[in-house]
Amino acid sequence: MTEITAATFDRPAGYRTIDLIADLGESFGAWTMGRDTEMLDMLTSANVACGFHAGDPRTMAATVRACADRGIGVGAHPSFPDLVGFGRRTMELSAEEVHTDTLYQLGALHAFTTAAGVRVQHLAPHGRLGNLAGTRQDYAEAIVAAARDFDPGLTILAQPGCLAETARQAGLDVALVGMADRAYRADGGLVPRGEPGAVITDPALVGRRTVKLVTEGQVEAIDGTLLDAPVDTILLHGDNAEAVEHARSIRHALAAAGVTFVPLGQMSRRAGNTP
Amino acid sequence: MTEITAATFDRPAGYRTIDLIADLGESFGAWTMGRDTEMLDMLTSANVACGFHAGDPRTMAATVRACADRGIGVGAHPSFPDLVGFGRRTMELSAEEVHTDTLYQLGALHAFTTAAGVRVQHLAPHGRLGNLAGTRQDYAEAIVAAARDFDPGLTILAQPGCLAETARQAGLDVALVGMADRAYRADGGLVPRGEPGAVITDPALVGRRTVKLVTEGQVEAIDGTLLDAPVDTILLHGDNAEAVEHARSIRHALAAAGVTFVPLGQMSRRAGNTP
Amino acid sequence: MTEITAATFDRPAGYRTIDLIADLGESFGAWTMGRDTEMLDMLTSANVACGFHAGDPRTMAATVRACADRGIGVGAHPSFPDLVGFGRRTMELSAEEVHTDTLYQLGALHAFTTAAGVRVQHLAPHGRLGNLAGTRQDYAEAIVAAARDFDPGLTILAQPGCLAETARQAGLDVALVGMADRAYRADGGLVPRGEPGAVITDPALVGRRTVKLVTEGQVEAIDGTLLDAPVDTILLHGDNAEAVEHARSIRHALAAAGVTFVPLGQMSRRAGNTP
Amino acid sequence: MTEITAATFDRPAGYRTIDLIADLGESFGAWTMGRDTEMLDMLTSANVACGFHAGDPRTMAATVRACADRGIGVGAHPSFPDLVGFGRRTMELSAEEVHTDTLYQLGALHAFTTAAGVRVQHLAPHGRLGNLAGTRQDYAEAIVAAARDFDPGLTILAQPGCLAETARQAGLDVALVGMADRAYRADGGLVPRGEPGAVITDPALVGRRTVKLVTEGQVEAIDGTLLDAPVDTILLHGDNAEAVEHARSIRHALAAAGVTFVPLGQMSRRAGNTP
Repeated sequence: MTEITAATFDRPAGYRTIDLIADLGESFGAWTMGRDTEMLDMLTSANVACGFHAGDPRTMAATVRACADRGIGVGAHPSFPDLVGFGRRTMELSAEEVHTDTLYQLGALHAFTTAAGVRVQHLAPHGRLGNLAGTRQDYAEAIVAAARDFDPGLTILAQPGCLAETARQAGLDVALVGMADRAYRADGGLVPRGEPGAVITDPALVGRRTVKLVTEGQVEAIDGTLLDAPVDTILLHGDNAEAVEHARSIRHALAAAGVTFVPLGQMSRRAGNTP
Repeated sequence: MTEITAATFDRPAGYRTIDLIADLGESFGAWTMGRDTEMLDMLTSANVACGFHAGDPRTMAATVRACADRGIGVGAHPSFPDLVGFGRRTMELSAEEVHTDTLYQLGALHAFTTAAGVRVQHLAPHGRLGNLAGTRQDYAEAIVAAARDFDPGLTILAQPGCLAETARQAGLDVALVGMADRAYRADGGLVPRGEPGAVITDPALVGRRTVKLVTEGQVEAIDGTLLDAPVDTILLHGDNAEAVEHARSIRHALAAAGVTFVPLGQMSRRAGNTP
Repeated sequence: MTEITAATFDRPAGYRTIDLIADLGESFGAWTMGRDTEMLDMLTSANVACGFHAGDPRTMAATVRACADRGIGVGAHPSFPDLVGFGRRTMELSAEEVHTDTLYQLGALHAFTTAAGVRVQHLAPHGRLGNLAGTRQDYAEAIVAAARDFDPGLTILAQPGCLAETARQAGLDVALVGMADRAYRADGGLVPRGEPGAVITDPALVGRRTVKLVTEGQVEAIDGTLLDAPVDTILLHGDNAEAVEHARSIRHALAAAGVTFVPLGQMSRRAGNTP
Repeated sequence: MTEITAATFDRPAGYRTIDLIADLGESFGAWTMGRDTEMLDMLTSANVACGFHAGDPRTMAATVRACADRGIGVGAHPSFPDLVGFGRRTMELSAEEVHTDTLYQLGALHAFTTAAGVRVQHLAPHGRLGNLAGTRQDYAEAIVAAARDFDPGLTILAQPGCLAETARQAGLDVALVGMADRAYRADGGLVPRGEPGAVITDPALVGRRTVKLVTEGQVEAIDGTLLDAPVDTILLHGDNAEAVEHARSIRHALAAAGVTFVPLGQMSRRAGNTP
């Protein structure tokens, strides 16, 4: 499930471009979440909430417009239908339910990208749906089917696992996500939150790890093993002032290492993009 | 507001085609509403609920697929966000709220038409939103802006009034809806439900009125005045067995008068379609 | 889990009273579900939906009033927060979430019983929450804690299993539900829907089984074993005309066997109520 | 509508007690709103959101428990069913809809006060529903009927106007709310937000006005007129750090003037409570 597979955006060691992404548009009505305005200055792509876990139509419109204005690639971030649980709770849905819920949310976002003169660039399932799609074939297939039914040009954003494999087999482009601040197990999976050392908090260390991940495609696992870990995008967080600072320092570390930032939709594919 | 304006689908007296339409897909989850299966045999277009007053994603998918299979034109039927009130209650929203809510629902439906290999043919605001758009400039403009932002090829379905005028001025096609079973005032507006004689129940009379409306573009108002009332589509109802029977008898009456049935999206525009 | 335990309403063989119950108030807004009006003539208790899977405030008010008018005992039928899934889908909630969701729904129903001059008689978790509470200790404890926090006089309605045991240990009265039309396994559990023979459709057989269940506290399992199966209430269904007919024939069979019908709240407890 | 009527808690000039109240529990799921923890140190009563505009069951439980622990009187803050609009948008509901929506929310809150060992002290309609109840007889009557149906001992919180009058005529206690930071018109109504001078921002001035309001029952209107303005409670705000500071300075000003703080539910009624 978690074996490391080659990224669609096939970049040999030494490549010097990366996408920077974060979850945006997770406010709802009168409630605000995340420091979207600050994050917009750093990102090349965004996962935009589509209404099922967050993201009312006003938030979606404003978020998409802000991304379009800055050339940030807009991705759908569909969720289980669980507003009060923020899409973080396991739901046992049929494949048809996941398929049609995903289509619904993809379409809703598409209306706002269309109004803003851009296209939906990618699809990244949110929260618990995203976690489960990494291991559950039925959910992975339902999501991939929705993407393909809607637009076969959509890139699927995933960690290595079931969703990435299913998408690739269906002929969709896959962008592999690297987690700058998370520890990896020797098998390439993430150390689950809650286990010791799961989250790396030292900004300098996170910066060094991210540079290695991006420029060498490798990461040191929690047991010291050096893993091959191809990545096409780095997931940043903008939940609070501290997270924004971390995100900024990651971006600075990458820039200092000579990396440039390009939205997924503008990367060349499968041909490598080394200097 | 309710003055009779020329239909987009500009059909001189003597034309012999009409669109037949009804609201479909108004079930929600475990709850069923309407006799959609029976109505599908009669219609050339459908207003499909988009989730805000009715129509969960499974219902939307199945409804759109059933329409696509039969060549029935699919229209968006966006509503106020009021599931428990079925979109029948007045809400005071800002223009931005109506605009973004309409976009959201249009996009969601578009995902299902795309998956089914067809396009959204038209937009017909539902229930109270539809009523208010007939008289409120702000709501009419917000809906028309959403349609134009999404797809300037969308036809706006309306009764004569504010929405129809606004859509036409924005350069959108307008299809005028005739109500087969409703009494008209001398000024072209409908007699409000609840007033005496507002709903015509005699099937034979409804049939004769509909034929006259379709083939002559005229209807007798409640005070006996003969009105010019151009129509592009006739709204049928499928709420219950009796309504389905009425719908069937209207269709029979039209067929017997030599009228043929064509979806809005296949009608020739502005050039007339007389025999 | 499914061992047969003694009912709170401890009735030795030969007792001659039973409660008849059904799920009521499962309409929502414009959508109707179930033949509540017809069922009201047969029941002595009702499980009333509380808004999370069905049952808007108007439906709740009308259902409670109708029950109060007829002396039908009103029970809360709380659910997972899943309107579109009618509470039938598994959700992985924390104990705190189940506890507070149950309290919320109990309280909401209590407002309508108070307005109608009656009390909430019992609590019967709905659908998937009810199924899971039969086997999951965390859900059972959360539901029982909510009941006890709200009103220690509430009776918990359950099949034999985890919820029933937990409630009893917490000192709450438990009413055991018999399923007139369902096959039992030799261990006292129900044969799952979908397996052959799970649902018994022959009205005469259902009638005979129900009479035996009520008057002798025994039921023949699917393998022919004769089980002790104490019951305090029989669950009837009113989904459609045929179900109502079945319900009526069960009631007739019981009446013909000399059984009388008494709401749970009026049964004498633990002392037996044999003639 | 806005004439100043005598407060239930009939306090002659010179009284020295007041209730301090704020809206609490307006978070929802993953979204936080308001600085409830800081406000809890200042209040003697709280309006607690009941799920329709804010306030999921976890938030309600925690808010009620925190109030109960501190002896803060808990009031229901029912709203239009408009989560995405935070209950701030006008909805045209029937009296039955307002009545049953209010009952539902009252009951839901009651479950949490019961679990916390306290009672619902008062009812204060939220947002747009509250505004409209000040002028619309149908909404005022529906709310008052719900309160009376649920618990005739509930106090209705209102500004002078339709709701206050209707409640008093129905025999319910009424607590009049003073707005410390809002300008009054000469007729006793508030200067609408958005008009010049509607909100008073100078903390020292707000403090002086509040002391006068509380200890003398008078306020200077925007045109300089001195109004009689009986108040039983002062509404504080805790939306952000600055609002909390203002609230604190109001409380300090009152304390410095010798006023003590008492929850509505512990005030003596109609007999005056001067030193």
